[in-house]
Amino acid sequence: MTSKNRVLSGMRPTGRLHLGHLFGALDNWRRLQEAYECFFFVADWHALTTEYADTKGIRDNIREMVLDMLAAGIDPSKATLFLQSRLHEHAELYLLLSMITPVPWLERNPTYKEQQQELTTKDLSTHGFLGYPVLMASDILIYKANHVPVGIDQVPHLELAREIARRFNTLYGEVLVEPQPLLTEFAKVPGTDGRKMSKSYGNAIYLSDSPEQVTAKIKPMVTDPARVRRRDPGNPDVCPVFDLHKIFTPKVERDTAIDPGCRTAGIGCLDCKGMLLEHMLPALRPIYEKRQELATRSEVVQEVLEDGWARAKKVAGETLSEVKAAMRI
Amino acid sequence: MTSKNRVLSGMRPTGRLHLGHLFGALDNWRRLQEAYECFFFVADWHALTTEYADTKGIRDNIREMVLDMLAAGIDPSKATLFLQSRLHEHAELYLLLSMITPVPWLERNPTYKEQQQELTTKDLSTHGFLGYPVLMASDILIYKANHVPVGIDQVPHLELAREIARRFNTLYGEVLVEPQPLLTEFAKVPGTDGRKMSKSYGNAIYLSDSPEQVTAKIKPMVTDPARVRRRDPGNPDVCPVFDLHKIFTPKVERDTAIDPGCRTAGIGCLDCKGMLLEHMLPALRPIYEKRQELATRSEVVQEVLEDGWARAKKVAGETLSEVKAAMRI
Ligand code: SF4
Ligand code: SF4
Repeated sequence: MTSKNRVLSGMRPTGRLHLGHLFGALDNWRRLQEAYECFFFVADWHALTTEYADTKGIRDNIREMVLDMLAAGIDPSKATLFLQSRLHEHAELYLLLSMITPVPWLERNPTYKEQQQELTTKDLSTHGFLGYPVLMASDILIYKANHVPVGIDQVPHLELAREIARRFNTLYGEVLVEPQPLLTEFAKVPGTDGRKMSKSYGNAIYLSDSPEQVTAKIKPMVTDPARVRRRDPGNPDVCPVFDLHKIFTPKVERDTAIDPGCRTAGIGCLDCKGMLLEHMLPALRPIYEKRQELATRSEVVQEVLEDGWARAKKVAGETLSEVKAAMRI
Repeated sequence: MTSKNRVLSGMRPTGRLHLGHLFGALDNWRRLQEAYECFFFVADWHALTTEYADTKGIRDNIREMVLDMLAAGIDPSKATLFLQSRLHEHAELYLLLSMITPVPWLERNPTYKEQQQELTTKDLSTHGFLGYPVLMASDILIYKANHVPVGIDQVPHLELAREIARRFNTLYGEVLVEPQPLLTEFAKVPGTDGRKMSKSYGNAIYLSDSPEQVTAKIKPMVTDPARVRRRDPGNPDVCPVFDLHKIFTPKVERDTAIDPGCRTAGIGCLDCKGMLLEHMLPALRPIYEKRQELATRSEVVQEVLEDGWARAKKVAGETLSEVKAAMRI
């Protein structure tokens, strides 16, 4: 047991990861694992809250995703990486916490109705979807995580986990730890069509894309739509290519070459994309290569998850025992 | 594995059992264990759906209850007797089934709003209380029980379990078995004040009551309220003592002695209670004595539940594996 503060974070098994995941989570996880005792998990049960009607891809998705995580620098010797559904302790705590969580708390959860309205093709009126924040609370509380990295929009979710922890502690005694948000600002990662990068939009650049594939995706990428001809000046502020420059290209180069070059039509969009690739390819190549190498070792995902399971189980099992003792069951 | 049809039934750990439990469940269980492969369980998680705010008695209640069950003839060599909360498989199936159970199915469950209205001193607007039928479905489906003994009022609950099983099988393939109701008529068991026998009314006769205690409770028992004096004729049809005669006294004696004796004031209520005790005490004494003997063996409850746990786990674990394989998680 270390005395470091504990961090918990999870990601749904959506399959191969793209730059949105890299800069929306993994890069942050990589930094966190140096300073905290980290528990990172593949949230396959969470996937069921919305994907219950079509589960056939989940297993492959898990494998692809773990390979991407390892390639992106998540280090199993530093962080505990595990698969949620292997830990029945989460399910048991979910059951117990579901007994003390008022339905109105769940109904006023802002993402509940939002998602129901957005995902109209799916029937999301299920008991499990309603209880999604209870499951999330179990995931966090069973590790007594002190911190959970969240974007500003996820703060209400975490607040609910804190409320559930308080209610438990009030009813049964101080067992659970109220997790604090680790507010994180994430870079905006546009897809090649300028919309948010997403598998379902077909606009994603994957960690498993080769340098050639990345190049082939960047070349036709959408730019400032007002810049039609080479001699038209452009506006980097509305250009998704420039958003990628903000991630990959040093500030000094952006400020002195790209931004003014665009605004004066000193550089063309193709030049600009070339300059982007000069930074992007070297940054992504090590991830790609590591991933290629990992993919040849068929047992690596299994081994990592097995080891993570054992470590996670130790902590989760202890908390569950304390919870049951406090509840006297 | 036997080829007998499988029966599942559970009982909440309310503490020492009384005649209401004996004739409302245990007597039936004792018969069922001869003809079916029976799984009987102490539903401690169910107790949490309504008793979450005060759990301190649950453990003692479990012990008292199992002693009563054994004393009443539940035979661990015939039936599998186990404690629900020892089987995390139930919690995991609850989580999975909660993902596919529409909230409207739960809201239209007649006992949901009924109980909320009845138990007004408790906050029953919880996610767990709403999901109670999902937990019940998990308990049943994880043993692939063919039959569940129910009173007519519980048929809707069981129908919900059947619907959940069908929905699962439609989404993921035929894994779960739709349980059939084993409609059972239970004798009316009045308490000593004429109301339904219940611990909370303080009108109960317990299996652990000695013959002297039973006698002391029957003597002042409420009778036909219109029969004020010894010479007033009575009406057995409205007399709770006569309801007990229906359980304990042979029909021929009721028809020839008690019923006409009451209606003609040929017998007094004290005579009538004496005649009841003549049948009641010999019927209850073996249970009382067996219970006294069991209570001296401090390890017996632990042993029975441990053995039941191992047998239940084997079946529950197999079903859960099939469920996960079908869901591909
Ligand atoms: S030059 Fe670069 S920043 Fe300007 S519009 Fe073209 S791609 Fe975008
Ligand atoms: S005689 Fe028996 S049945 Fe009749 S009122 Fe009295 S107790 Fe009841």
